[in-house]
Amino acid sequence: MSTGSEKAVVLVSGGLDSATTLAIAAEEGFETGAITFRYGQRHGVELEAAKQVIAAAGVTDHVEIEIDLRRIGGSALTADIDVPKAREIAEMSEGIPVTYVPARNTVFLSFALAWAEVLEADHIFIGVNALDYSGYPDCRPEYVAAYEAMANLATKRGVEGERLTIHTPLIDLTKAQIIARGIELGVDYGVTRSCYDPSPTGEACGECDSCQLRLKGFAENGLDDPAPYRAQAAA
Amino acid sequence: MSTGSEKAVVLVSGGLDSATTLAIAAEEGFETGAITFRYGQRHGVELEAAKQVIAAAGVTDHVEIEIDLRRIGGSALTADIDVPKAREIAEMSEGIPVTYVPARNTVFLSFALAWAEVLEADHIFIGVNALDYSGYPDCRPEYVAAYEAMANLATKRGVEGERLTIHTPLIDLTKAQIIARGIELGVDYGVTRSCYDPSPTGEACGECDSCQLRLKGFAENGLDDPAPYRAQAAA
Repeated sequence: MSTGSEKAVVLVSGGLDSATTLAIAAEEGFETGAITFRYGQRHGVELEAAKQVIAAAGVTDHVEIEIDLRRIGGSALTADIDVPKAREIAEMSEGIPVTYVPARNTVFLSFALAWAEVLEADHIFIGVNALDYSGYPDCRPEYVAAYEAMANLATKRGVEGERLTIHTPLIDLTKAQIIARGIELGVDYGVTRSCYDPSPTGEACGECDSCQLRLKGFAENGLDDPAPYRAQAAA
Repeated sequence: MSTGSEKAVVLVSGGLDSATTLAIAAEEGFETGAITFRYGQRHGVELEAAKQVIAAAGVTDHVEIEIDLRRIGGSALTADIDVPKAREIAEMSEGIPVTYVPARNTVFLSFALAWAEVLEADHIFIGVNALDYSGYPDCRPEYVAAYEAMANLATKRGVEGERLTIHTPLIDLTKAQIIARGIELGVDYGVTRSCYDPSPTGEACGECDSCQLRLKGFAENGLDDPAPYRAQAAA
């Protein structure tokens, strides 16, 4: 809990997890600044969603960073590799999926760290989740702890004795629990987008890993997902 | 020492330190890939220098990443803050200079890490130096060690058991020692650029911290710096 005057940088993607994380940071009393990334992702509709999420949360301090991860490649989200569809949920946790973007959270957190230093913020919130995304190395608690340790040695602010904390309020939650928490906090999930392969107008496919996990999370809460899906999708 | 088939990503800025680092990595038998950054720096002539350094070293695998650190600000190198001139060398080591760019090495290493994963490289070389740049938190050995620990938890490659090493061959060297080593390895320092505030045509000012440290390093080797300086500068 913050005393109300402390600043926090929140990584916002336009997805369900980060929208919930932003709401949690605000609930905990932090003055939030939102950082988003335009990184050559196929699902650029996420960025529009991010703006709506940030506006809906009443956050006015927003920085969008443009980085070209396509120059680096290596992922279905940024290179010309097919996004897997209609996999079983159990299958998703086997190994690291092709949607993994090399060192993505490390790159994102590094910009968040830079901005945090300029804002004099000692808190970063990131919506990583170790349960649903067990396949991503940079969503694990041990990774986040190591990042925090490094970050405290990386900056002028750290040298001057200020302690940076990386908050991962979703780390142990299931998708259903995340959604339940967000509903409690008044998050409008209708503006969030999670699909790895949406239509150009933003409708979700309903079949990629991300859509399936999301749909299951709403179903477990006895709710319909308010986000738009393509006609043929099992929304 | 590498067996000759191992790949390494080398961060190249166009400055003296990274040119020497690139030569050392090649000398140690690594197959090198060079990564450079266009980050809104005032001294954009560095980027032209970087291309010449890379070409001179015979490196063909090169990726240039464009990132806009100006959106983040907080430094004389990327924002509208004056670069200090004609300071005493002793004065430079007092506190952290305004030329410090928040979390810059963390951002740079994160892109290097992403590219290393795609290249299947287990080595990153960075020309940080703890003596001349004692004021920069992200040039200290403890920072680099913490970054390496984090990096080994961050990637698919790390999870699969490959160990990433971050090499800092210059960390304990004085500028004079770096130059002596580079001369030994045949580095052409005439194409490198170190000035924080060069003229549009690439002449160094001779008065900023970086120029002063560089000129002192050449002088201690009994050499003239082959790089161009403005007429009024004490080259």
